[in-house]
Amino acid sequence: MYKLDNALKIPLHIQLYDALKKDIVQKQTVGEKLPSIRKLSSLYNISKTTVESAYSQLYAEGFIDSQPKKGYFVADILYEKQHVHNNTKSTQQQKKSSYKYDFFPAQLRKEDFPLKTWKRLFNKAVDESLDFGSYLNGQGELGLREEISSYLNSLRGVQCDASQIIICSGFSDSMGLLAKLIQNKYTHFGMEEPGYHVARRVFEEYGYAIESIKVAKEGMQLDTLKSSKAKLIYITPSHHYPTGVTMSIKQRIKILEYIHSIDGYIIEDDYDSELAYYNRPIPSLQGLDNYARVIYMGTFAKSLSPALRVSYMVLPKQLLPLYKKSYDAHFPRVSITTQKTLELFMREGHWERHLRRIRTINKKKHNHFKALLQNNLKNTFEIVAEGAGLAILINPTVAFDWKQFKSLAEKESIKLYFAKERSGGEFEAIRMGFGGFLLDELEEAVKAFSNIWHKSIC
Amino acid sequence: MYKLDNALKIPLHIQLYDALKKDIVQKQTVGEKLPSIRKLSSLYNISKTTVESAYSQLYAEGFIDSQPKKGYFVADILYEKQHVHNNTKSTQQQKKSSYKYDFFPAQLRKEDFPLKTWKRLFNKAVDESLDFGSYLNGQGELGLREEISSYLNSLRGVQCDASQIIICSGFSDSMGLLAKLIQNKYTHFGMEEPGYHVARRVFEEYGYAIESIKVAKEGMQLDTLKSSKAKLIYITPSHHYPTGVTMSIKQRIKILEYIHSIDGYIIEDDYDSELAYYNRPIPSLQGLDNYARVIYMGTFAKSLSPALRVSYMVLPKQLLPLYKKSYDAHFPRVSITTQKTLELFMREGHWERHLRRIRTINKKKHNHFKALLQNNLKNTFEIVAEGAGLAILINPTVAFDWKQFKSLAEKESIKLYFAKERSGGEFEAIRMGFGGFLLDELEEAVKAFSNIWHKSIC
Repeated sequence: MYKLDNALKIPLHIQLYDALKKDIVQKQTVGEKLPSIRKLSSLYNISKTTVESAYSQLYAEGFIDSQPKKGYFVADILYEKQHVHNNTKSTQQQKKSSYKYDFFPAQLRKEDFPLKTWKRLFNKAVDESLDFGSYLNGQGELGLREEISSYLNSLRGVQCDASQIIICSGFSDSMGLLAKLIQNKYTHFGMEEPGYHVARRVFEEYGYAIESIKVAKEGMQLDTLKSSKAKLIYITPSHHYPTGVTMSIKQRIKILEYIHSIDGYIIEDDYDSELAYYNRPIPSLQGLDNYARVIYMGTFAKSLSPALRVSYMVLPKQLLPLYKKSYDAHFPRVSITTQKTLELFMREGHWERHLRRIRTINKKKHNHFKALLQNNLKNTFEIVAEGAGLAILINPTVAFDWKQFKSLAEKESIKLYFAKERSGGEFEAIRMGFGGFLLDELEEAVKAFSNIWHKSIC
Repeated sequence: MYKLDNALKIPLHIQLYDALKKDIVQKQTVGEKLPSIRKLSSLYNISKTTVESAYSQLYAEGFIDSQPKKGYFVADILYEKQHVHNNTKSTQQQKKSSYKYDFFPAQLRKEDFPLKTWKRLFNKAVDESLDFGSYLNGQGELGLREEISSYLNSLRGVQCDASQIIICSGFSDSMGLLAKLIQNKYTHFGMEEPGYHVARRVFEEYGYAIESIKVAKEGMQLDTLKSSKAKLIYITPSHHYPTGVTMSIKQRIKILEYIHSIDGYIIEDDYDSELAYYNRPIPSLQGLDNYARVIYMGTFAKSLSPALRVSYMVLPKQLLPLYKKSYDAHFPRVSITTQKTLELFMREGHWERHLRRIRTINKKKHNHFKALLQNNLKNTFEIVAEGAGLAILINPTVAFDWKQFKSLAEKESIKLYFAKERSGGEFEAIRMGFGGFLLDELEEAVKAFSNIWHKSIC
C-alpha cells in the first residue's frame, strides 16, 4: 500500500503518481498489469479522476502503456542507466494582426504581461545597482543565470549550474550562436520532419547540410536517424512542433544512447513545455542525460514576452571552452536593464506565479475552445493534437474544398495557420490558436470559423 | 574677403573654415599657399587662435597640407566627383577595475550616464505604447531607426534613411551579422594593421582569410591594399584605432574609387568620431561615397553606455535584399524597452545634449591630463596621439626598462594598456586613458604613474 496523505500540500494524484513511478522504476516489472482505475480508487478511497490523472501522467511520460479495453501495463523504459527527474514547468506567443479573427497558434494576450510588476522592478533595479558605464559579463549577468539555473533544476529537471548558461537575445540568436560555435565539429544537422522552420533555417544559413528525419507517434524515428549522416540533431521532445507529440521516455533514452555512441549532440528545444493541461509538464530530456550530450534551449518569448528578447542555452560543460574562446564570450547579448529586471522578477517569485497564472488562464481557454469546436463542427472534424500549448490542431474528416475554405477565410478576415506551410513534410493540420483571444471572445471567433468551415464541406 | 560675423551663432573659426573650404573646393587651386595665420588674423581682426582652429580643421580633413616653416597649401583632394558634407558628431568606454589607477583607454564615468532621464523615459515608453505581447520589427523599431538616421544625416554626414538601418546588440553583433550575410560574396577581409582586434576576430571566426594592411600617416596604405586579395575592408577613418590617425579626404576618395572598381565594400567603423577636441568631428566616409560601397557601423556603447547593448549598421540599399532573405530579418536583437527608451531619448534632444556634455567634460580632462603628463614626464616622453577620444598615446624618448615598468605598475596597482598587445602589428604606444577618472582625480593618478615611469628610465 502507498501512503497517500490528504493533509499534505502535494495533491493526491501527484502523490499517487510519485509512488507508482517509484515502484515501476525499482521493480522493473515490465509488462505487469496495473490495477484498474476503479480498483485503486476504492482501495485508497480517492476519486477516479485522481487515479486517472496519475495514470495519464505516467502514460505521457512513457512509464506505462495503455492497451484498449485491457488496461495499463508497465512499459519497458530502459531507465536502468538513467536517473529520472520528477519536477517540472514554459509556453508560446506573437504578432499584431490586422485580421478580425487571428488564430495565431502561439499568441499570449498583451494583457498577460505583468506590466506593473515589470515597471516596478525595472525602477528598483536601476535604483539599486546598475552601472551603465561598464561592460557586462559576456555570458549574461551571474545573478540572472543563477535564477534560471535554479528554475531549470527544480521545475524542468535540467541538471546544470549557472556556469553553463548563456543568455541570448531570442531562440534564433541562441541557435545561431550554437551553429557558429560547433560548425567545425559537425556538418550535418538532423531536423525533425515536420519541424520548426526557424531551427532549420538558422543551421542552413550557417552552411550545415540538413537531414530531415521523420517524426512518428513516439517522436523522431530512430532508424531514419541512424541511416542519416546527422550527429547533431534538433528535437522538441516535450511537445513536438507542430504535431504536439510527447516523446516517450523509451524513445528519449534510445536517442540519447545512440547520440552518445556516435559522439554527437542533441539540441533540446523545450518548447511549450509549461503549458500542459492534462498532465504535469514532462521533465526535460536533458535531465535524463548522463552523458552530457544535450544542449538545452529555453526562451522567455513564449511564456513572458517575445518583445523582451531574452532566451538562454544550457551548454554541456565540455562545450564551455569552445564558447569561452570565441569572441562571443566577451560581449553580452542583452541589455543590463532587461537582465536585471528579469533577475528580480524571478528572484521575487513573480516568474513562477506568472507561469501558474498563464497556465490557468490558457487551460480554461483551451477547454472552452475545444468544446466550442466540438459543438460547432460536430462530426465533420477530428482533433489531431490538443491538451497543451496555445493551439488545438484539427483536420476535416469529410470531403473538403480547401481552396474555397482559404478564400472564404481571407474574405471574412479570418487568419488561419497550416502546419505544412511552415514545417514541411507530409503532416497537415489547421493550427487553431486560442491564446490571442479573451475567454469570452472565443465563441464569436469559433462561430465565424464554423461558418466558413461548413461552407467548405463538399 | 570673406564675411565673418561676430553676431552669428556660428563661431568665427567655423565661419572662416566654411569660407576657406568653399574657396578651395570651387577654385581647386592645388598647391596654392594660404595666407599666414598672422596675416589672416590682422586682416579680419580676429584672434590667431581662431585662424589656427580653422586651419587645423581643414588640415585634419585633408583640404590643406602643412609644410614645416613654409605654411599651409591647398591640397590635391580629388573631390570633383564627390560631394562633401560639413556637419558632424560618437565616443568609447569599459570594465570595472580592481586596480587603484586604471588607465583604461575607453572608459566613460558611470556618472556620465543620464540615469534620471533614462528612467523617466523608460517609464514614459512603457506607459505610452509598449506591447510586450507582440513580436517586433526584426530590423529594429521604425521610430528608433528614424531617429538614428536623422542623427547620422545631420551630424555625421551619413547618407541614409531608416530602411537601411539595422539595430544590433553591440559592435561585435553588427559585425557578426554582416560577416554572415556576405560570407558567400567575399572570402578575404582586409584589416587595418594595427587595428581593432574585435573586428579581426569576428571575421576570422566566420572563416574569412585576414589580409593585414598597414596603416600609415594617411590611413590605410593603398598599394598594400591593391596587392592584397581583400575586396572587403574594415577601416576607422575618423580616428584610427589605435593610432588616432584621421584619414585624409584624398585617401578616402582613393580608397572609395579602388573599392568601387573591384566591386568590393568598405566597412566604416565610425569609432570615437564624436570626441574630437581640437577640430570639429570629421564627417563620415560614407557621406563621400557616391557608389554605395560603404557599410557604416555605429554604436551607443562608447558614448552612452556599453551596458545597454545597442549598436547599428547602415547597409547600402543593394545589400538590403540579402539581409531581408536571411532569418535575421525576422528577429529583433534588442529588447523593446531599450529600443523605445532610446527612441524617446533621441527624439527629445537628450542624445545631442549628452554628446555635447561628454565632449565638454572629456575635453577638459584631456587638456588637464596632457598638461599633467608634460609637467611630470617632462622631456622623457613623446605624445604619439592626442586631441580625440578618451586616451592620449605616449612613448618614452629615453632608454627605458619596459620589464621593470610593467612589474612596478602591477606592484603599485596601476593598470596600463599597450597598443601592440591588442592591435597587432609593429605600432607600440602606452594608451593612457583618462575618461575613467574625475577631473580632480587625474593629478594623483598621473603622479603615481610618473613615479613608476621615472624608476623605469635606464
